[in-house]
Amino acid sequence: MRLSRYFLPVLKETPSEAQIVSHRYMLRAGMIKQASAGIYSWLPLGFKVLKNIENIVHEEQIRAGHIPMLMPTLQSADLWRESGRYDDYGAEMLRMKDRHDRDMLYGPTNEELITDIFRSHVGSYKDLPLTLYHVQWKFRDEIRPRFGVMRGREFYMKDGYNFDLTKEDALHAYNRHLVSYLRTYERMGLQAIPMRADGGPIGGDYTHEFLVLAETGESEVFYDSEITDLKFGDRAIDYDSHAECQAVLEEFTSRYARTDETHDEEIFAKVPEARRRQARGIEVGQIFYFGTKYSEPMGATVQDAEGNKVPVHMGSHGIGVSRLLGAIIEASHDDKGIIWPEGVTPFHCGIVNLKSGDAEADAACEALYASITALGLEPLYDDTNERAGGKFATMDLIGLPWRITVGPRGLKNGVVELTSRRTGESEELPPEEAVARIAAIYNKVLPGA
Amino acid sequence: MRLSRYFLPVLKETPSEAQIVSHRYMLRAGMIKQASAGIYSWLPLGFKVLKNIENIVHEEQIRAGHIPMLMPTLQSADLWRESGRYDDYGAEMLRMKDRHDRDMLYGPTNEELITDIFRSHVGSYKDLPLTLYHVQWKFRDEIRPRFGVMRGREFYMKDGYNFDLTKEDALHAYNRHLVSYLRTYERMGLQAIPMRADGGPIGGDYTHEFLVLAETGESEVFYDSEITDLKFGDRAIDYDSHAECQAVLEEFTSRYARTDETHDEEIFAKVPEARRRQARGIEVGQIFYFGTKYSEPMGATVQDAEGNKVPVHMGSHGIGVSRLLGAIIEASHDDKGIIWPEGVTPFHCGIVNLKSGDAEADAACEALYASITALGLEPLYDDTNERAGGKFATMDLIGLPWRITVGPRGLKNGVVELTSRRTGESEELPPEEAVARIAAIYNKVLPGA
Repeated sequence: MRLSRYFLPVLKETPSEAQIVSHRYMLRAGMIKQASAGIYSWLPLGFKVLKNIENIVHEEQIRAGHIPMLMPTLQSADLWRESGRYDDYGAEMLRMKDRHDRDMLYGPTNEELITDIFRSHVGSYKDLPLTLYHVQWKFRDEIRPRFGVMRGREFYMKDGYNFDLTKEDALHAYNRHLVSYLRTYERMGLQAIPMRADGGPIGGDYTHEFLVLAETGESEVFYDSEITDLKFGDRAIDYDSHAECQAVLEEFTSRYARTDETHDEEIFAKVPEARRRQARGIEVGQIFYFGTKYSEPMGATVQDAEGNKVPVHMGSHGIGVSRLLGAIIEASHDDKGIIWPEGVTPFHCGIVNLKSGDAEADAACEALYASITALGLEPLYDDTNERAGGKFATMDLIGLPWRITVGPRGLKNGVVELTSRRTGESEELPPEEAVARIAAIYNKVLPGA
Repeated sequence: MRLSRYFLPVLKETPSEAQIVSHRYMLRAGMIKQASAGIYSWLPLGFKVLKNIENIVHEEQIRAGHIPMLMPTLQSADLWRESGRYDDYGAEMLRMKDRHDRDMLYGPTNEELITDIFRSHVGSYKDLPLTLYHVQWKFRDEIRPRFGVMRGREFYMKDGYNFDLTKEDALHAYNRHLVSYLRTYERMGLQAIPMRADGGPIGGDYTHEFLVLAETGESEVFYDSEITDLKFGDRAIDYDSHAECQAVLEEFTSRYARTDETHDEEIFAKVPEARRRQARGIEVGQIFYFGTKYSEPMGATVQDAEGNKVPVHMGSHGIGVSRLLGAIIEASHDDKGIIWPEGVTPFHCGIVNLKSGDAEADAACEALYASITALGLEPLYDDTNERAGGKFATMDLIGLPWRITVGPRGLKNGVVELTSRRTGESEELPPEEAVARIAAIYNKVLPGA
């Protein structure tokens, strides 16, 4: 993308309403604009990151064998009366009446709707196991929305639902979700620690929250420091293997890690003192096993092998997709702006032309742009007439992990400059080597290589 | 995807509530399930087609230089009061109050919100031309929702907005949209004819609707039969060239083609009688130029080269993404089911194992599955124990354009059967040739070729 043709309305001033760094930088980098309290428009740069995060979520869910679909944003109140949650949910549920005076609501979650789909279409244990999920906008009418997309009212969330014949199968689905979530967050450059959580209004005997450590987190967390050394990495996993998934669960949840809701001083005291940590965390996901809590009242049953009608064992599993943008920025920034991990960056690298209008500099930039585009990558080329300082400030603010700087002086020596946003380190090298480095960083194969 | 692991709840019976063929087949093929009146859940098969259509829309918009973003579903009533449309819009607008008693609405369209974004961030003619678009859920509280996704209440739509300094530039944006829409529909296997339309509640001096001819269309249309011979095809186009885009507009709109809203018997009578056609059509898109209708009352101005503040010239341009599934099925089906065009098909081909459990048949199916997957294509492999007749009926119903049938008898002669869903023609050929044919159909390169 050429910046002269893009819509990137960066702000010089820090907006006064933003209390935390991710909110400030998302506004300043032209990623979002508030439409009304807790409701945001995603400007082009923000939308690109949102889509990148959504794509990673989809890829890892599909890899785990979970099936994508899509439920609507608006729901009829009837199903919620059936489950008994319509009155329980309180003022956070946005309710409305349609023109025929029927009670509707903007879905804050989808247990009722998915259970209704299941009971309408599935009747036999032979159709199990089944995990369906979607990524859809939700609404929770927070009394005080704040922190930008971290606690918005209209938010984008992945929620998945497993249906299993037995508790054992359902716990395998739980483990499968845990593994797929570990992979998902790591691909986004995040360490998200599974912590024992509280069931809350959805209920649930088994539940873990995934927390990203950050000073601005809303939750107080307590953990054994050994847990931060764990990495799932790119190890192979057979999602069908109960044993393999169970082993990962044990590896990642056997050490002490709890939020203030479930914290137990007595157990925590048994962790060696040098490893006891108290910090703050941002919740970016949660997994639940809740048994037959919805299947029983709503009649979601299957025939088992003996011909008996039994209610299915269910769980629900969520990832806060829009909130993740805030969490990633909270975890990865400096005083100049955002530092995107390569996995989610809106553009793979920036190209800064120090002298737009200079024939040689323009030609070198165009050649770089073409070579990087040919790799299947997307560079952002600042082809505007702004002065160099302004161009660097914008690139630093929007946080592209790599920048190639092109100027007449370097070109005389046959070099351009490749700069890492994270370390600030720069290196002079010939343009074709800069392209090769970018290709290697993103695992792309050079043509002819 | 292996059918035994998928969620494809096909129905044997025709649902009584469905009046038109697309609605019937979408229900029977397990693509959608009604959640409440005019509101649908997209089951996995339907979701896949919806995404394919959305992706084509994105690709063609980006190719035309238009910039993707995303606006929220819920809007504050304030902006609509500013434009004067809050009271005008009537009962089709779904209104609600949040917990702080503020008036909100579920956006039926986004002129107000995008104009607000524009005026907040753009101040100079140098930032023009600019076209922003999004694909987002909308709500219109139809009094009698019907015809499935064709006239739903919650529907998925692409809406784009151009901002230009002059009327001439805005009309170029109009033409650019016309060209990109022609390409978009053709990639979906549709002929959508641009017809002179009525401005309706959004207003507009220049507007065309795109209509797909189908007996079940809600609009009566009148046209010169020469128009159905036009094809955009894969010709190259420079979207920056005013002359090239204008020439396409003239080519595709100079012949008589109007809906009943703008039909003029006197002009129509001048078309040679043999070429005069009266038919029915489904509206799948519309483009508008409406000048300064929103920019003036909402103060969306830029400084021109002389330093004067002038209101920008705008247009809005929509494609009914969810409705397109219905339109494609209305235009492409037979009495056995759907016939997907290759551009939008949920799976690229089906693989039917005539004797699941037979070691040789299973192995041949697995090998085909692996080879086709390695091409970057997605086959749907029916590995279930259903009898052959049932498997064929399901494949015909869900409409995959190509089917490979594998059975012990053919394998003895070293062949499988490749069948076209559209023509019904079958051909026996060795498995590797069947793979090569599938690769060629979808423009994929065979490994080692």
